[in-house]
Amino acid sequence: MKPAIIVVDMVKDTFKEGSRLPITEEGRTIIPNLQKLLKESRRRGFPVIFANDSFLKGDFIFNGKMKSHSIRGTEGAEVVADLNPEPTDIILPKRRFSAFFKTDLDQTLRLLGVDTLVVTGLTTEFCVLSTVIDGLCHDFSAVILEDCTVSHSKERHQTCLSLYRETSLYPLLRIMTLPQFLDDVSTQEIR
Amino acid sequence: MKPAIIVVDMVKDTFKEGSRLPITEEGRTIIPNLQKLLKESRRRGFPVIFANDSFLKGDFIFNGKMKSHSIRGTEGAEVVADLNPEPTDIILPKRRFSAFFKTDLDQTLRLLGVDTLVVTGLTTEFCVLSTVIDGLCHDFSAVILEDCTVSHSKERHQTCLSLYRETSLYPLLRIMTLPQFLDDVSTQEIR
Amino acid sequence: MKPAIIVVDMVKDTFKEGSRLPITEEGRTIIPNLQKLLKESRRRGFPVIFANDSFLKGDFIFNGKMKSHSIRGTEGAEVVADLNPEPTDIILPKRRFSAFFKTDLDQTLRLLGVDTLVVTGLTTEFCVLSTVIDGLCHDFSAVILEDCTVSHSKERHQTCLSLYRETSLYPLLRIMTLPQFLDDVSTQEIR
Amino acid sequence: MKPAIIVVDMVKDTFKEGSRLPITEEGRTIIPNLQKLLKESRRRGFPVIFANDSFLKGDFIFNGKMKSHSIRGTEGAEVVADLNPEPTDIILPKRRFSAFFKTDLDQTLRLLGVDTLVVTGLTTEFCVLSTVIDGLCHDFSAVILEDCTVSHSKERHQTCLSLYRETSLYPLLRIMTLPQFLDDVSTQEIR
Repeated sequence: MKPAIIVVDMVKDTFKEGSRLPITEEGRTIIPNLQKLLKESRRRGFPVIFANDSFLKGDFIFNGKMKSHSIRGTEGAEVVADLNPEPTDIILPKRRFSAFFKTDLDQTLRLLGVDTLVVTGLTTEFCVLSTVIDGLCHDFSAVILEDCTVSHSKERHQTCLSLYRETSLYPLLRIMTLPQFLDDVSTQEIR
Repeated sequence: MKPAIIVVDMVKDTFKEGSRLPITEEGRTIIPNLQKLLKESRRRGFPVIFANDSFLKGDFIFNGKMKSHSIRGTEGAEVVADLNPEPTDIILPKRRFSAFFKTDLDQTLRLLGVDTLVVTGLTTEFCVLSTVIDGLCHDFSAVILEDCTVSHSKERHQTCLSLYRETSLYPLLRIMTLPQFLDDVSTQEIR
Repeated sequence: MKPAIIVVDMVKDTFKEGSRLPITEEGRTIIPNLQKLLKESRRRGFPVIFANDSFLKGDFIFNGKMKSHSIRGTEGAEVVADLNPEPTDIILPKRRFSAFFKTDLDQTLRLLGVDTLVVTGLTTEFCVLSTVIDGLCHDFSAVILEDCTVSHSKERHQTCLSLYRETSLYPLLRIMTLPQFLDDVSTQEIR
Repeated sequence: MKPAIIVVDMVKDTFKEGSRLPITEEGRTIIPNLQKLLKESRRRGFPVIFANDSFLKGDFIFNGKMKSHSIRGTEGAEVVADLNPEPTDIILPKRRFSAFFKTDLDQTLRLLGVDTLVVTGLTTEFCVLSTVIDGLCHDFSAVILEDCTVSHSKERHQTCLSLYRETSLYPLLRIMTLPQFLDDVSTQEIR
């Protein structure tokens, strides 16, 4: 496995001081696991990619109930400080759900020799899932790290995962825990 | 609402004589509703688009447990006879899950003046959902017609729908029944 | 070199009986070379891809002086009889100039193990050039076969080629003759 | 006409102090015209988009004779100081030639209500032309501003323009001078 770590939508607007949104509360619970994942991944030389919502003002996506947020060029669309991107990480602004939608991520991953996406962040049933599905579309295997991924509630998160645990795409599509993933790559040489 | 009807993966390989696959059984249950939908939609001049899996032999997607099927250029990748496409319908071969993935569907829909996708067929949590999500990515509203859509079991179907019934994307993303949809468009002039 | 042969826009509408359009006259001059190229390429197992204009009625592209032609689903958008596609060839309808624009050609070429596009057909400065440039964008080397490619006049053809003979992209982008190409691949095993 | 101004590849790496590359010399000659264009365009509220080469180290594009330059994340990939982007301008990093290739430019332009691209910068026969062609592919009219665009020599520039002055795409594709363009939009209300 030549993995790349994709961290989806862990942006400042979702983690504002004082926010009591369910997604903020849930999002905070995975930060320690994400920190561990990033540390171990960088040690092994796995590419780390932060895929961040980067919406334009007045965008179609705000014509429903969703409030304007994570606007391109604003601080709110930056990676939350707790995850502290390093200069070698890739920051990938994305226009919609999937990290592949109208971006050059597929080509970057091939240049880096990646064959497997390890997808984390939020939310499970939208941006994480879309990125996973698009990864499979672009001929990459995909792993959802279930303890590094959240939705608005634990129930929604588990409901979504239940649909993709056993599918005909296995093992191109897998759901793993952080310990399982770290165990899987433990024999890979540290660069 | 200027809808286009998208019928996903209702292809011959899934409805082979004698097949007792769960997806075949489930798929057959929606054919009467689809027939009604298509008839009413054509009367009103709504575009009808059949988006069909059109896989290449040896494709990445077959590296998991999925068996080779719906191969490009074969009869198995054609629309099932019960749905009987008309010459004015659009047949759209697709390489993977979403009807938008590496196709020109977005541009065709804009040329036709469509603002809403009405997505049907199978399976709910893969090709139907991917098409819906990609429709939203391309600035189209999207409706899942829940009684014209199936998965491998009624439970999987309902589990998937439960995740998308109430979201911040409402009403850009809606789940409707066939009667609700026909009622909604009943006042639209017949061409 | 693992080449794929791309034949661009050699469609029936351009070669109608009685047409005295300059592009028809020019197009006829390359048919013998194309026939030779296809024969030798098929013997060696090189993929052969016919990329054909496949326009929708009322399309944007017809808002200028260009007359409606090569309409999707019509006989006029089929490959001209002299080139006689074989069942193993790929027929790729394209919405606009480049064979890559909103198609899955890039992924097909990677599945086939291709590293170099050999582009032929018409016209040099539009659909041939766009396909070459997009090939380079998708990380494929590209060859324009100058004696298998035409424009509305020999002068336009040569003027276009003069711009791309010596560039900083060489040898990713090359202009070759049919004899040079056949010589280059002569040592490749016949499948 | 609802134009957007696209300035292609006017990046610091091309205009380094002391560089005597032909493209540097040619590029400097259009800076006064570009400054005038940008000033007049911003007054009228036309979107201004800087599309900048943003290559990855080790990219395919550097496998030919082209030397590594305009690397993503480096100062050399920033807009040259003389053109001084304003906060309301859009900075669009691009992976290859066309400003549309694996970017969300098409969708941004539609959100902004643009119908015509006005393309400037360098080089005429590669990145400018590719952007123009891709604009036409995405249903936008396109103008090459010939006195705001350069190639490695005046001869190459004129040779390229000669191919596109009179085509069947006219007037979807036009070549204009800066005075002609400013005259055309002179009656448009200043925002």
